[in-house]
Amino acid sequence: MTQIIDGKRTAEKIKQQIAREVQEMVEHGGKRPHLAAILVGKDGASQTYVGHKEKACGQVGFESTILKLEENITEEYLLEQIARINRDKDIDGLIVQLPLPRHINEIKVIEAIDPAKDVDGFHPVSVGKMMLGLPGFLPATPFGIMSLLEEYEIDTRGKHCVILGRSNIVGRPMANLLSQKSDRADCTVTVCHSRTLHVEDYTRRADIIIAAIGIPEYLKGDMVKEGAVVIDVGITRVPDSTKTGGYRLVGDVEYATVAPKCSYITPVPGGVGPMTIVSLLRNTLSAAKKEYSK
Amino acid sequence: MTQIIDGKRTAEKIKQQIAREVQEMVEHGGKRPHLAAILVGKDGASQTYVGHKEKACGQVGFESTILKLEENITEEYLLEQIARINRDKDIDGLIVQLPLPRHINEIKVIEAIDPAKDVDGFHPVSVGKMMLGLPGFLPATPFGIMSLLEEYEIDTRGKHCVILGRSNIVGRPMANLLSQKSDRADCTVTVCHSRTLHVEDYTRRADIIIAAIGIPEYLKGDMVKEGAVVIDVGITRVPDSTKTGGYRLVGDVEYATVAPKCSYITPVPGGVGPMTIVSLLRNTLSAAKKEYSK
Repeated sequence: MTQIIDGKRTAEKIKQQIAREVQEMVEHGGKRPHLAAILVGKDGASQTYVGHKEKACGQVGFESTILKLEENITEEYLLEQIARINRDKDIDGLIVQLPLPRHINEIKVIEAIDPAKDVDGFHPVSVGKMMLGLPGFLPATPFGIMSLLEEYEIDTRGKHCVILGRSNIVGRPMANLLSQKSDRADCTVTVCHSRTLHVEDYTRRADIIIAAIGIPEYLKGDMVKEGAVVIDVGITRVPDSTKTGGYRLVGDVEYATVAPKCSYITPVPGGVGPMTIVSLLRNTLSAAKKEYSK
Repeated sequence: MTQIIDGKRTAEKIKQQIAREVQEMVEHGGKRPHLAAILVGKDGASQTYVGHKEKACGQVGFESTILKLEENITEEYLLEQIARINRDKDIDGLIVQLPLPRHINEIKVIEAIDPAKDVDGFHPVSVGKMMLGLPGFLPATPFGIMSLLEEYEIDTRGKHCVILGRSNIVGRPMANLLSQKSDRADCTVTVCHSRTLHVEDYTRRADIIIAAIGIPEYLKGDMVKEGAVVIDVGITRVPDSTKTGGYRLVGDVEYATVAPKCSYITPVPGGVGPMTIVSLLRNTLSAAKKEYSK
């Protein structure tokens, strides 16, 4: 029997926990956690994402501030704004919505964020701590996936996990997290990517597959062994005239052929997706509680 | 035909390149690169290692300073010394020889080193940059192994590399480096460790094996496929009454049975070992040239 991992329900449950904790903080005279987001330019998807984050903050009782900047600002000006927010004691977490306009160096911008406020977990200090197994901000999607594995009590110890994709925001952090010495990790991890030959030779042996390559329906049923756990990180809009809106959302997994073979699988939508914003909220709460700073 | 990877010769060649570059820097009115090492207590092995590093500095024309501190110093005092060296403009690189006495928090000490002087590459900033594929100080052993693969023009692209060991100083960095999108990497990487079941199922399929688990002669001939490249990071003293000194050095690879099957193999000693100190010298030179700082 295939069990469907319900990311929406899990995310909702975590949100309620966060909301309760914020309420207690406020009742004890504390301030509400405060997330600031910087949005540069008018990219539609970025506006939508930042809007979702703002809404989620409201749902759990966080304060949020969105700083909207023009497309044509200088890098220097953006760095000044970051420095100002870094100094602002009322703001706990700061995210800069990516991608940035081409004339701005993203790495320089990320490195300018105070690591104590780096709730996206993209700063080298956060990345380094994660790799070293030290407490710190985890990037949202990997954090969400680890939470789902925990929520569904999926045994990872000694399992072979194959990760499809080596991105800095999903594949690579997942490889580091799942190979840590821990009861909630301890996987033997293989990272496959665009240069891997015969990907199916790896996926067919995998106990756990994390698909994060951004190719719709890439993983097919004949590439998966009976009883595997499949986590689908992909989410692509595919034109579909039968749907209102004219498209449907598709993951990196061909659900119809893969799901019947799985012990557990995440659907798209409603699997990994809803966990991402919730992880950002958790990081912001940790920042407000100064959990990772001395 | 098995080709033996000569780490000693490669290290010597790189040392000569560094020495020439230092000479040129000095001839052009520049200062010599300067490495400072902090040694706490009287651990014999640590004294030997620091001595080797000092000697290597002398060979390439670097200045070196060893700060020897008593076993019973406080953590606070050590942190003060680090802060002082961080401020010292004449010192380019700083290493704190590990392990430290138990009453001192190693992570706190490593995090206190100015990332611009972190020539051991152990600071979270260095680790994070490495994982993100950004330029920065690489930890010495992985840097040495990458240099050997390059020196011997070993093709890594699309190869399956199995890494035995998930330590923060060898296994984990090697996994991140070899899976990077690059002509000198692009491996499909699997990390095996103490919780991996049936390690031989992985090693028998590997094109490249990095053995870094610290178990003498762990990897046997029947665990390796014909034509594999084997890099042996292990180095253990094994009692041997036939040797002067009463011991011999043994790697993680059973050389007699593995070597005949390999296309390339590193011997122990004389393989990875000599590359380690040379990598520290390269990092110190990069620090002196401010290659990774703005």
